[in-house]
Amino acid sequence: MGLIVQKYGGTSVGSIERIQAVAQKVKATQEKGHQVVVVVSAMSGETNRLIALAHEIGTSPAPREMDVLLSTGEQVTIALLCMALHKIGASARSYTGSQVQILTDNAHSKARIRGIDGVRVSGDLQAGRIVVIAGFQGVDDQGNITTLGRGGSDTTAVAMAAALKAQECQIFTDVDGVYTTDPRVEPKARKLDRITFEEMLEMASLGSKVLQIRAVEFAGKYNVPLRVLSSFEEGEGTLITFEDEGMEEAKISGIAFNRDEAKLTILGVPDEPGVAYSILGPVSNANIEVDMIIQNIAEDDTTDFTFTVHRNDYPQALEILKETSSILGAREVSGNEYIVKLSLVGVGMRSHSGIASTMFEALAREGINILMISTSEIKISVVIDEKYLELGVRALHDAFNLAGELPV
Amino acid sequence: MGLIVQKYGGTSVGSIERIQAVAQKVKATQEKGHQVVVVVSAMSGETNRLIALAHEIGTSPAPREMDVLLSTGEQVTIALLCMALHKIGASARSYTGSQVQILTDNAHSKARIRGIDGVRVSGDLQAGRIVVIAGFQGVDDQGNITTLGRGGSDTTAVAMAAALKAQECQIFTDVDGVYTTDPRVEPKARKLDRITFEEMLEMASLGSKVLQIRAVEFAGKYNVPLRVLSSFEEGEGTLITFEDEGMEEAKISGIAFNRDEAKLTILGVPDEPGVAYSILGPVSNANIEVDMIIQNIAEDDTTDFTFTVHRNDYPQALEILKETSSILGAREVSGNEYIVKLSLVGVGMRSHSGIASTMFEALAREGINILMISTSEIKISVVIDEKYLELGVRALHDAFNLAGELPV
Repeated sequence: MGLIVQKYGGTSVGSIERIQAVAQKVKATQEKGHQVVVVVSAMSGETNRLIALAHEIGTSPAPREMDVLLSTGEQVTIALLCMALHKIGASARSYTGSQVQILTDNAHSKARIRGIDGVRVSGDLQAGRIVVIAGFQGVDDQGNITTLGRGGSDTTAVAMAAALKAQECQIFTDVDGVYTTDPRVEPKARKLDRITFEEMLEMASLGSKVLQIRAVEFAGKYNVPLRVLSSFEEGEGTLITFEDEGMEEAKISGIAFNRDEAKLTILGVPDEPGVAYSILGPVSNANIEVDMIIQNIAEDDTTDFTFTVHRNDYPQALEILKETSSILGAREVSGNEYIVKLSLVGVGMRSHSGIASTMFEALAREGINILMISTSEIKISVVIDEKYLELGVRALHDAFNLAGELPV
Repeated sequence: MGLIVQKYGGTSVGSIERIQAVAQKVKATQEKGHQVVVVVSAMSGETNRLIALAHEIGTSPAPREMDVLLSTGEQVTIALLCMALHKIGASARSYTGSQVQILTDNAHSKARIRGIDGVRVSGDLQAGRIVVIAGFQGVDDQGNITTLGRGGSDTTAVAMAAALKAQECQIFTDVDGVYTTDPRVEPKARKLDRITFEEMLEMASLGSKVLQIRAVEFAGKYNVPLRVLSSFEEGEGTLITFEDEGMEEAKISGIAFNRDEAKLTILGVPDEPGVAYSILGPVSNANIEVDMIIQNIAEDDTTDFTFTVHRNDYPQALEILKETSSILGAREVSGNEYIVKLSLVGVGMRSHSGIASTMFEALAREGINILMISTSEIKISVVIDEKYLELGVRALHDAFNLAGELPV
């Protein structure tokens, strides 16, 4: 019967009808005896409409003014949601990021939250009011409006939950939870009742776009229990929690994948200290993010070096690598922009051996060639040809019996 | 070369193109050596769009939340105008009503300004920046967003001009100044170079909707010189000033009229103390605003009582009056909803006699019957049949030679 923070995204508040449906859900939560804080995004389409207005003027508007513009989107939603709550007899009050004092640094368009003054909100909650807060926005110490970047409403919700020591932070979205893999690729994919923060971080960073990665990090840091639920269907969703004993049983939580990868290889570079920096320095100076990095064992006194980038950055990265190649006197540069990354994620991996071999065997059985391998404590990633994506996901889903209710 | 406050209304900022045109005008003002503060309204249509969203939920939204909703309209404009100023190389910064600390009382949707903290704005001006402020909105001492009611952007501009001791407050609108009467009724109507605050107040309250009456009152109270100009044409507009010697010459500044009037009469009520209250009390309790009130000389021990109301309120006012009539034992109730009010306005009236007789003579010459007369120090109003409106305006315009450049 504690305090619940609920967050509804743009699709969930995309029309007056949907806002009214959200009001019903919020009121029902309060009627169960909870105090409720609601964080909302702009109505879907609104942010894009505002961006289009700005772009009619110019392509690089001042970030300070862009934040003034975009923050109106959530402000419209908080007012409308309060009206809808009043209409059904609930007491509610709205706050902008500035009013509730979501203090951030001054990095416009990607500000980071520094603190929240929960005093005013606490007063409303004690008076029996539902508090409705504009997500995605804050205010710096000079009173300038800031935004947290796209998807920042999740972060607002988690930060509010942390500041108010909420019992749970519920993220309502258009999916009903976190799945073992994308159900569009593997129809047998199963919704998880629970997943750990670490696993969720790996899933999120690998393209399972259920939650913003910053929000998950934030929740982990401040021990805020997070739950992902559907705005449109009933259900318990998926609880993202801290590791507990029962969870050790499940070795693998899910299979994440990322379609938008490309890989580049430079062959026959001198195997000497500093060579990795010589190769990756120019790439990172061009603001290209590098994902996986692999250096093969040296043959003679040269070595081969492979890394992956986002597919959009492939042409530019290839140009840079060719220049580096001629400077270093490398033998050859090659690349492939038709690859994908497949990852097994699970905290259970830590204490169970044989996961990697089961994975490689399952892929081999389907004739899928592995181009790169990279491992972390709770994840094994492989790079394969793009055409094998669906086949690979299904093979691994079967091999680890993820559709079944019982752990392997 | 002092500080100028400029205000641009919804039509003037109704599209990106128009916002860019405003940016050019603002920059040109700065280049003449002025410091410039700009106050803007919501883009035309935006406020109505937001109201429609609220009304999809219910017809009587909470005023606090309505203010949160509506204030986003101006916030969008300030951001876009700053972007347009940056684009043409001007330095500019935007402020919401809350950021600039336009402090108001907490009467949501019709808040009154209590004070303005000009410190931050002064700093920007000294640094050579153009300051762009959201009109129509403020903040109460609890940090709640308030609005000043429709047209409140004029008030914001005047209040900023008063707080910053501006040289002039320029209201840009879709007309190029204040005219002797409505040019659509009398094509010979002439633009006034100057008009006094008192005359402007009478003109504004009588339906010459160039400026909000509260803004004019405010400007008069704080001695802020106001100028009305066109956003779309060049010109000096009309300066609204304090009385000066030269102005005494002109007896009449203009002719205002109001189409939306209706009159009600109660005949044969007892001529005794308290009867006016017995009649008007129930009307005002029904939130109906009464304009002119006339009580005729008593015959025997009864009297007749006539008043005017807005035409929309006529049916309800008539109902109320019939009830009052039976309570008071009056002889009869009658009414006419096809009337208009015509007013001569001019400070010169004070020191010149014969104005009223010239007015009545001009109307009589055209066969126009006068139904009611009411006078104030700088105004004579008559109520006439609706069908004589245009004829009456032209007759008076001629009789007082308002089309000529010379005073009568």
